[in-house]
Amino acid sequence: MALIVQKFGGTSVGSIERIEQVADKVKKFREAGDDLVVVLSAMSGETNRLIDLARQISDKPDPRELDVIVSTGEQVTIALLVMALIKRGVPAVSYTGNQVRILTDSAHNKARILQIDDQKIRADLSAGRVVVVAGFQGVDEHGNITTLGRGGSDTTGVALAAALKAAECQIYTDVDGVYTTDPRVVPQAQRLEKITFEEMLEMASLGSKVLQIRSVEFAGKYNVPLRVLHSFKEGPGTLITIDEEESMEQPIISGIAFNRDEAKLTIRGVPDTPGVAFKILGPISASNIEVDMIVQNVAHDNTTDFTFTVHRNEYEKALSVLENTAREIGAREVIGDLKIAKVSIVGVGMRSHAGVASRMFEALAKETINIQMISTSEIKVSVVIEEKYLELAVRALHTAFELDAPARQGE
Amino acid sequence: MALIVQKFGGTSVGSIERIEQVADKVKKFREAGDDLVVVLSAMSGETNRLIDLARQISDKPDPRELDVIVSTGEQVTIALLVMALIKRGVPAVSYTGNQVRILTDSAHNKARILQIDDQKIRADLSAGRVVVVAGFQGVDEHGNITTLGRGGSDTTGVALAAALKAAECQIYTDVDGVYTTDPRVVPQAQRLEKITFEEMLEMASLGSKVLQIRSVEFAGKYNVPLRVLHSFKEGPGTLITIDEEESMEQPIISGIAFNRDEAKLTIRGVPDTPGVAFKILGPISASNIEVDMIVQNVAHDNTTDFTFTVHRNEYEKALSVLENTAREIGAREVIGDLKIAKVSIVGVGMRSHAGVASRMFEALAKETINIQMISTSEIKVSVVIEEKYLELAVRALHTAFELDAPARQGE
Repeated sequence: MALIVQKFGGTSVGSIERIEQVADKVKKFREAGDDLVVVLSAMSGETNRLIDLARQISDKPDPRELDVIVSTGEQVTIALLVMALIKRGVPAVSYTGNQVRILTDSAHNKARILQIDDQKIRADLSAGRVVVVAGFQGVDEHGNITTLGRGGSDTTGVALAAALKAAECQIYTDVDGVYTTDPRVVPQAQRLEKITFEEMLEMASLGSKVLQIRSVEFAGKYNVPLRVLHSFKEGPGTLITIDEEESMEQPIISGIAFNRDEAKLTIRGVPDTPGVAFKILGPISASNIEVDMIVQNVAHDNTTDFTFTVHRNEYEKALSVLENTAREIGAREVIGDLKIAKVSIVGVGMRSHAGVASRMFEALAKETINIQMISTSEIKVSVVIEEKYLELAVRALHTAFELDAPARQGE
Repeated sequence: MALIVQKFGGTSVGSIERIEQVADKVKKFREAGDDLVVVLSAMSGETNRLIDLARQISDKPDPRELDVIVSTGEQVTIALLVMALIKRGVPAVSYTGNQVRILTDSAHNKARILQIDDQKIRADLSAGRVVVVAGFQGVDEHGNITTLGRGGSDTTGVALAAALKAAECQIYTDVDGVYTTDPRVVPQAQRLEKITFEEMLEMASLGSKVLQIRSVEFAGKYNVPLRVLHSFKEGPGTLITIDEEESMEQPIISGIAFNRDEAKLTIRGVPDTPGVAFKILGPISASNIEVDMIVQNVAHDNTTDFTFTVHRNEYEKALSVLENTAREIGAREVIGDLKIAKVSIVGVGMRSHAGVASRMFEALAKETINIQMISTSEIKVSVVIEEKYLELAVRALHTAFELDAPARQGE
């Protein structure tokens, strides 16, 4: 008999029918003998409806009061699910963040969990009840209602699993697991049985939007096994867990991630003096623009070129900041490019395998895809290429790293 | 500088526009120097929407969970009003029942307030903030969310006023005060400047549905001056307060109440033995039928007649119970009448004025209205008459007790 935390998102509880389906699912798990803590989001659309009400009053609604309003969304779904469980003869009880007590800091709209009181939940589990907890919300030390910010329900699930030392935190979504890459780009993409926290972080931050990054960090930190599953289809999903060294069968690369959200900026002919990187990136950071990849070429004739990527939405802003900087430091020119894409190979296996990067470059060269920028980390190699080659690059890499699903009989 | 509790009902906060209007009103009071605690209901229709969601899951939703859902209605309005106040430069803060802490018993859906913690509210008032509290809700000793039942927001207002020893509890409604009688029946009806708690209870229970009876009882018990006012029109409203003996100008009668909701049942030729009243009313009460007026005539030939009134909705049920009883105790016959109306004169002044009842009977006799039943209490005389004479009777009494407004110039 294991203790499992299950988290269902907004679309999984988006209607009375869906809530009834979730109740069926929870009942089945309960009957299999597991102790269950269920974390719910608000019904899809409800949080936006509530925010819209607040915005009708004020463009910048008071953050404390916004949390008071927005937190009602989950409060409704938890009680509805408990009613549906009780109707099925499954004893259950609902708790708001305050009732559990999920203690957070006082950063309204983006609070962080500090501590979870597990007393009430343990007592209910011992009494045979399913405990249904409102995701996304908590309470600060003064009793003010707080919310964890968008997508915070995943974090609630992981934090509860950590506090309760649950066997697993199951995140139910609209996909049946984490794939080697986007199946819309590569039909041979395969569902991964297992992936490490580090790999998942790289995959998530690179555009595989299955899980909230914060919840994966949290799960890794407290070593909570996470499982991504489909809300209404059967299947084992994908288990996200620590890197188990003993596994000899580990593939080198777990997946291919990509995104088209970035733009590239280059400042050329920069006098190569100490502190030049700060002179260039300082004003960008001061303008609250987040920088992703950064590449500085070796100096040539006492000048250097400096390239970095930012989110496409911030391209115009970054360009104007950079043009100012260029004038000030006497750089030759600034050029920008919106038509780029980033492709990354991710896998803890590359730690123990030499030549992974060159295998990547070889595969891209075979398709005559030019690499504009390269950035590497311990478990990831990312390249920036021309956007039009994105699909071709992803397919080539998927094949080169032997991720393609074997052709199935009858297909 | 007085401390005032103001309560606004569902229609007063039924839209963003209305909430903005309430904020304007509160701001005006604040600027006049008063300390303000504002109690709100949910937006009109919202409580029913939430109950409907629950009923889609279950005909008999779990009472604890129903409170979790239903309490979100007020949680939304309090935060919206605070946002609107902050937008106007008025410092304000919202509290749910749990946050205040309004401690109740655990009778979900119909809880009673046990205790109110005034610490946070007092600190906020001292800091110059308007405190906006969710009506209709509280929390039990175990931290479960409770609701006070329909109309409970009035009770929250009165209870807060009592706990804070407020100068006044103002109840904002869609009428501008309590009238001597229904102005639709008597155009000369006048708004009362003042009325006692006892009178208000008699007026309310007799069909003037301005305030919830429970909140008036509560206000009387703790001697909280209540004032009924119109939400969006200016005016002093009606003050409901204790009977101030010193006032020499007190009118004998404060108002004429009436209702058409009752039906009359008579059991005739009942053998006059001890315990006969219990034999007749016991089975009625056992069937959960509430009895209002009861009249037993003096015995005649060892038999007596026994008449009582019930709500019209329960007439058929009461009739069949009574017919059974008649057979068992050997009564002669049972007769019933649905076409009756009850008219009452109410006023603490009648305590010190003899002959008030006879003046009432005289006024009715002048109009040749036959009186079928009479019932008296210390501050009320009620009669049952044929329904078709109702308006005539009310107008005659309104004039006889000098309640008609003087004809105004130009009217």
